[in-house]
Amino acid sequence: MDISDLAERILKGERRALARAITLVESGRRDHRAAATALLERLNDSGRHSLRIGLSGTPGVGKSTFIESFGLMLTGERLRVAVLAVDPSSARTGGSILGDKTRMERLSREPLAFIRPSPSQSHLGGIARRSREAVALCEAAGFDVVLIETVGVGQSETVVAEIADLFLLLIAPAGGDELQGVKRGIMEMADLILVNKADGDLKAAAARTRSDYAGALRLLRKRPQDPEGFPAAIMVSALENSGLEKAWTRMQELAEWRREHGHWEARRAAQARYWFAQDVRNALLARLEEPRAREHMMMLSEQVARGEISPGAGAQTMLEVLGDVRPCEGGAAPIA
Amino acid sequence: MDISDLAERILKGERRALARAITLVESGRRDHRAAATALLERLNDSGRHSLRIGLSGTPGVGKSTFIESFGLMLTGERLRVAVLAVDPSSARTGGSILGDKTRMERLSREPLAFIRPSPSQSHLGGIARRSREAVALCEAAGFDVVLIETVGVGQSETVVAEIADLFLLLIAPAGGDELQGVKRGIMEMADLILVNKADGDLKAAAARTRSDYAGALRLLRKRPQDPEGFPAAIMVSALENSGLEKAWTRMQELAEWRREHGHWEARRAAQARYWFAQDVRNALLARLEEPRAREHMMMLSEQVARGEISPGAGAQTMLEVLGDVRPCEGGAAPIA
Repeated sequence: MDISDLAERILKGERRALARAITLVESGRRDHRAAATALLERLNDSGRHSLRIGLSGTPGVGKSTFIESFGLMLTGERLRVAVLAVDPSSARTGGSILGDKTRMERLSREPLAFIRPSPSQSHLGGIARRSREAVALCEAAGFDVVLIETVGVGQSETVVAEIADLFLLLIAPAGGDELQGVKRGIMEMADLILVNKADGDLKAAAARTRSDYAGALRLLRKRPQDPEGFPAAIMVSALENSGLEKAWTRMQELAEWRREHGHWEARRAAQARYWFAQDVRNALLARLEEPRAREHMMMLSEQVARGEISPGAGAQTMLEVLGDVRPCEGGAAPIA
Repeated sequence: MDISDLAERILKGERRALARAITLVESGRRDHRAAATALLERLNDSGRHSLRIGLSGTPGVGKSTFIESFGLMLTGERLRVAVLAVDPSSARTGGSILGDKTRMERLSREPLAFIRPSPSQSHLGGIARRSREAVALCEAAGFDVVLIETVGVGQSETVVAEIADLFLLLIAPAGGDELQGVKRGIMEMADLILVNKADGDLKAAAARTRSDYAGALRLLRKRPQDPEGFPAAIMVSALENSGLEKAWTRMQELAEWRREHGHWEARRAAQARYWFAQDVRNALLARLEEPRAREHMMMLSEQVARGEISPGAGAQTMLEVLGDVRPCEGGAAPIA
């Protein structure tokens, strides 16, 4: 594979090259991984910055309808929009929140839009790295906005928050005045709460819900990265295309303020540090997944289970097997 | 330090040797760690088996009063009892659930009892390993029963369940008929639920609470490691020393049944496998805590934060620094 050619084509914004590169970062093969790292390193200094928007909401709040309407509004302004998904549930259930492109039929036909379904993946760590790398690829390909969708299941929100510049929480109008059991941790991540379905019979309920959330947001501790009036709660209707312009204006206001006050750069830097540390940890642990290491792990594990050696002594033997404890002679001296 | 002498004295049941050995396993020093591993390996085949009893309960349910009364009952039967604590909160707050020995003043004066406060420790992983190793030391020292106390904060229960043979949940009588918000995950770990404070004015409430929990336990899926009638819920009063004999009889019944049906050995084997895998993971990650590794991590992290290199490329460099990627020449070939 010609990495340098692939990088060129991504920088030119070629969709097929982008799709191929995302397939590459999603691959678990060792040679693909090396190629992906080389590609990302080459694209690292593209100097391009998308607005990365994280979007969460429980099933049924109308996420795909919102993304379609919002995405079409953006492409209508001649902005290029990429849509990605972080979906840890797809690995287990076989389903995928973006697996069915027909969910966003109009947006997927739009030349300025790029929609990528969630990869099938075995664990959240892998999904996280691949999603983050896919975002970096979209950014290098010159997309103005990258929407990163996730389901409301806790840990995946944290992943998206560590990738995105802005975090949106989409909710449905509540029947009563209760806060729909949105977890406090997720509320605290939100920069903007969008009460969807503010149309027809639900409009009054949406107004009440918006006001409840606005009140709840005021009770949260003020964050240094927020100007006056943020986090905000506003009503939208993806169905009637209402409130979308306003939502976009608020997002731009917030992004602009953060850029001017240094929070934008600070957040991206913190995210880069976080992902670097995660990559190092995962790479260290990945050594245990290699076939010969797995064999040794299983063998030692059974000895430990039979009580022949203690867990600690077994672990020490395993580290020696991995070549970690004894510094090797003649080669480069490892740190240990 | 003479490990072989220390091991001898522990096997003879010398309390000072035991206390010193626990201090050794709690130490973070590299030479202490090596000595601790050697000591544990030497004691691994002592052939002694304590009954390891995990005990959890939120603050205020009377854990220390229960442990004192229950412990004194056991020493009254000439059984040797060790009490340890797994307390992740002590690291943060500086407090410790067993820090104050005066909480169990009578038991601590009892020659057949050994009480060890929770170590101050920075993270749950460290606490877990040290607690498990302290239990192994008490077992080698010939204690008949090792009580492992924890607070009801979720993750520490999992740690205790992975150390203990039996898991007790201590609860207080509820005012109404609600289940006091005990997390389902913790309920599912319990072998025996003890409704404490079944005395005086609270006796009727305790009976209702017991009955509520007994009902809730019947709704849980039957576990293969339980005989008919388990998990059970019974009333105790640590204050009036009532129900303690019955609780002890039930624990022995359950332990006996599990021994006869192979569940005892299977559980210990599964726990050993679990701790072995944890030890390997932690040892791999511990390499990042070494001074020179930390320096490199910080340097690379800043380069990544400034956007000079991508997180993935930074991680790759870090692995090369750790000597993991390039196989070394002349020394033993590492698996990688």
